[in-house]
Amino acid sequence: MSFNHVTEADLKYFEELLPGRVFSGEEISTDYDHDEMTIYGHYMPEAVLQALTTEDVSAVLRYCNEHNIAVTPRGAGTGLCGGCVAIHGGVMLSTEKMKKVLEVDVKNMTATVEPGVLLMEFPKALEGTGLFYPPDPGEKTATMGGNAMTNAGGMRAVRYGVTRDYVLGMEVVLASGEVINLGGKNVKTSSGYSLIDLMVGSEGTLGFLTKLTVKLIPEPKVNLSLLMPFDDLDACIGAVPAVLGCGCEPTAVEFMEREVIACAETYLGKQFPDTSADAYLLVRLDGASVEALQPAMDQLTDLALSIGAKDVLLADTDERKESIWNARGAFLEAIKGSTPEMDECDVVVPREDIPAFVRKSVEIGKKLGVRICSFGHAGDGNLHIYACKDDLADEVWEKAVEQVMDELYIAAKEMGGEVSGEHGIGHAKKGFLAESMGETQMNLMRGIKAAFDPKGILNPGKVVG
Amino acid sequence: MSFNHVTEADLKYFEELLPGRVFSGEEISTDYDHDEMTIYGHYMPEAVLQALTTEDVSAVLRYCNEHNIAVTPRGAGTGLCGGCVAIHGGVMLSTEKMKKVLEVDVKNMTATVEPGVLLMEFPKALEGTGLFYPPDPGEKTATMGGNAMTNAGGMRAVRYGVTRDYVLGMEVVLASGEVINLGGKNVKTSSGYSLIDLMVGSEGTLGFLTKLTVKLIPEPKVNLSLLMPFDDLDACIGAVPAVLGCGCEPTAVEFMEREVIACAETYLGKQFPDTSADAYLLVRLDGASVEALQPAMDQLTDLALSIGAKDVLLADTDERKESIWNARGAFLEAIKGSTPEMDECDVVVPREDIPAFVRKSVEIGKKLGVRICSFGHAGDGNLHIYACKDDLADEVWEKAVEQVMDELYIAAKEMGGEVSGEHGIGHAKKGFLAESMGETQMNLMRGIKAAFDPKGILNPGKVVG
Repeated sequence: MSFNHVTEADLKYFEELLPGRVFSGEEISTDYDHDEMTIYGHYMPEAVLQALTTEDVSAVLRYCNEHNIAVTPRGAGTGLCGGCVAIHGGVMLSTEKMKKVLEVDVKNMTATVEPGVLLMEFPKALEGTGLFYPPDPGEKTATMGGNAMTNAGGMRAVRYGVTRDYVLGMEVVLASGEVINLGGKNVKTSSGYSLIDLMVGSEGTLGFLTKLTVKLIPEPKVNLSLLMPFDDLDACIGAVPAVLGCGCEPTAVEFMEREVIACAETYLGKQFPDTSADAYLLVRLDGASVEALQPAMDQLTDLALSIGAKDVLLADTDERKESIWNARGAFLEAIKGSTPEMDECDVVVPREDIPAFVRKSVEIGKKLGVRICSFGHAGDGNLHIYACKDDLADEVWEKAVEQVMDELYIAAKEMGGEVSGEHGIGHAKKGFLAESMGETQMNLMRGIKAAFDPKGILNPGKVVG
Repeated sequence: MSFNHVTEADLKYFEELLPGRVFSGEEISTDYDHDEMTIYGHYMPEAVLQALTTEDVSAVLRYCNEHNIAVTPRGAGTGLCGGCVAIHGGVMLSTEKMKKVLEVDVKNMTATVEPGVLLMEFPKALEGTGLFYPPDPGEKTATMGGNAMTNAGGMRAVRYGVTRDYVLGMEVVLASGEVINLGGKNVKTSSGYSLIDLMVGSEGTLGFLTKLTVKLIPEPKVNLSLLMPFDDLDACIGAVPAVLGCGCEPTAVEFMEREVIACAETYLGKQFPDTSADAYLLVRLDGASVEALQPAMDQLTDLALSIGAKDVLLADTDERKESIWNARGAFLEAIKGSTPEMDECDVVVPREDIPAFVRKSVEIGKKLGVRICSFGHAGDGNLHIYACKDDLADEVWEKAVEQVMDELYIAAKEMGGEVSGEHGIGHAKKGFLAESMGETQMNLMRGIKAAFDPKGILNPGKVVG
């Protein structure tokens, strides 16, 4: 891939198009040269453009397509695999000013938003409607557009599914500048190839999202959480299949290790409500009332105690729930704060293989002398495994972390797992994707890319590019 | 598109490959020249081949690709838009002998089946596991492979979603004969473009499905249905948004008209349990126990009575449930039996627009002098609207039905609807799809088709071909 650099003439054109929303050279904040994983490198775009409207996006893409300039889409920059980093330079096209909630349609139970709306801001728009948006990725400062384009998952995926399951409609600008509308407010369809499912999770390589229509559901009236301490991680993780299979419809099933909890305690300056155990399973239930949830609570409690839980702690007050879930929500930042550098792997494996995979990751870490922290969505087989540099020398770390990642991805593949459960591929995981998919599937993906973006200007170097 | 005819040499090759499972000329049953909608024509394949294994399918496709022979995939032939009909002649490749349930994996809550397993046979394989497969299309003699390739919907989609939501893994043979594995037993993924979502609903135009892994969920312990009679269709349909929005998580919300019920009574030779009303809303609830469902039942009953229902009849015995749901299940055959010829439209519209769309269809029928019967999945905006020939003269009917369909699809498009909610496109709805999608999206779909099947041998003349 070879793209043209951004010239003075290009900048002049952009400035006329987006007055006051064009930044180049020294004006560009270094925030734009990386995402949340600095280990994958720093790359400065040649220009940062802030779009306000679909027309802005269309005009920029048409121009860049004609002039062969690379375009990197950017939301809040909270990704974890370099998906929104301008590794080929060129233009970074940001949605940070496209943050209007355009409509909340209570009757159809949908909402339409601009791509830059932050996940943490969206619930305000739903207040008083009795509706809610189930996807719940840990990173609440992410944009909804970014969530859709990476098919973000989150804690509540066990019961409610992932972002893909809530995307009903998209307005997308193609590389050519053409605007297309995919889906709408319909809740099902069998009308030709599912272009919208192709767009979800495509990480901005097939089109630039300018409007997003999502499905809402009636808000569950109450929720409560059960915290189950176990003697060790093995017993904890081993309990997951029984919890999932008991018919209690858990909303979330998360596992947490003492070591990671300790990081979070330090990071937050707050104690976790239990210190008795090395590992915990955290189960959340949603329902119409506490009474309606009672049978499920009773069943889960009996079950947990019968398969090795030391206790079952009920969190039904806001304070108690917050003390547990805030700790859970802080894990990524807490681990990050505990070590000078880290790498991450977000594989997904069949749920039954979670215990084996967690054991394997512990082994790999021990063998290669790298501290491994893990936590994750035990309920859906999606693990977040962190390799921490700590005080390893640079050369030792670089070699070791590469081997850790290789071995983790090989182990996942052997179990029928996939490279990413929810963070995506970006540029950092491209090699692992190619390895996992094989040449035939990679060629199909390249064929699709060519049909959408013949010159390859959209987010080059990512996923398949 | 121009394909080679099947020659004696080709038949000899196939016979060696699939001994006793090759049929040509007079040996081919006329069953294979149509699907369930004979109005879309009769087309005889030149050869019918029955595959037993993935290797059979791979060898046939490789040969046909090399020899430029059209291949039409065929399951049980229960489609409604000519998707499995050999409109370009050539080979029909049938999955009717690929009907093994290969695995039920209780721990991962998945099952893997060959594509020819019938929907009605599959539950036997799950007996005693406590698990169930939620997709519930009306046509129980359809194959699971056909369901996946058309993204079939069904009654329970309101709560549980459509077939797409349950497809986790696929083994697919490409036009070249190459075998690829998409997905697996993982319940979420963000690992490159979602080829599996592209394959679901592609109606055999992108690849030939040879194995299917589906997600299972814990079986709800009880279900019951509420039948709500209304004075007229308008009041009945008008009640849908409130029922959906009340937070009771209905499994199914179906509407039925007196006239269609009468057809079913005649067809089944059995009385429907209520005769008091012109239109009914039928709501099904699933849950852990009758007690657990009581609050939802009470809430729905109060709600229904407050918005115009004349009564709310509870069906909690098997006998009562069967008398209602068997009638519902017989609607298609019953309407078919009531008229010498019919055409069908399976649009999906935003849920709020269901009342307006049903009203519009009644108007169109009146205006054009064609009897219109409708029923459908009120809960997900998917309507089945039938135009019946009755005693209209051929020329009158042919002209009128074309206009009825044109007007229905235009009305759906104006409401933001789509061409098909669950039956697919086949060859019969291609024009409507192209009209609805526009040239840019059709070109994207053609680009995708070219990436998967460069010579266009797979199910030619369907969807985009």
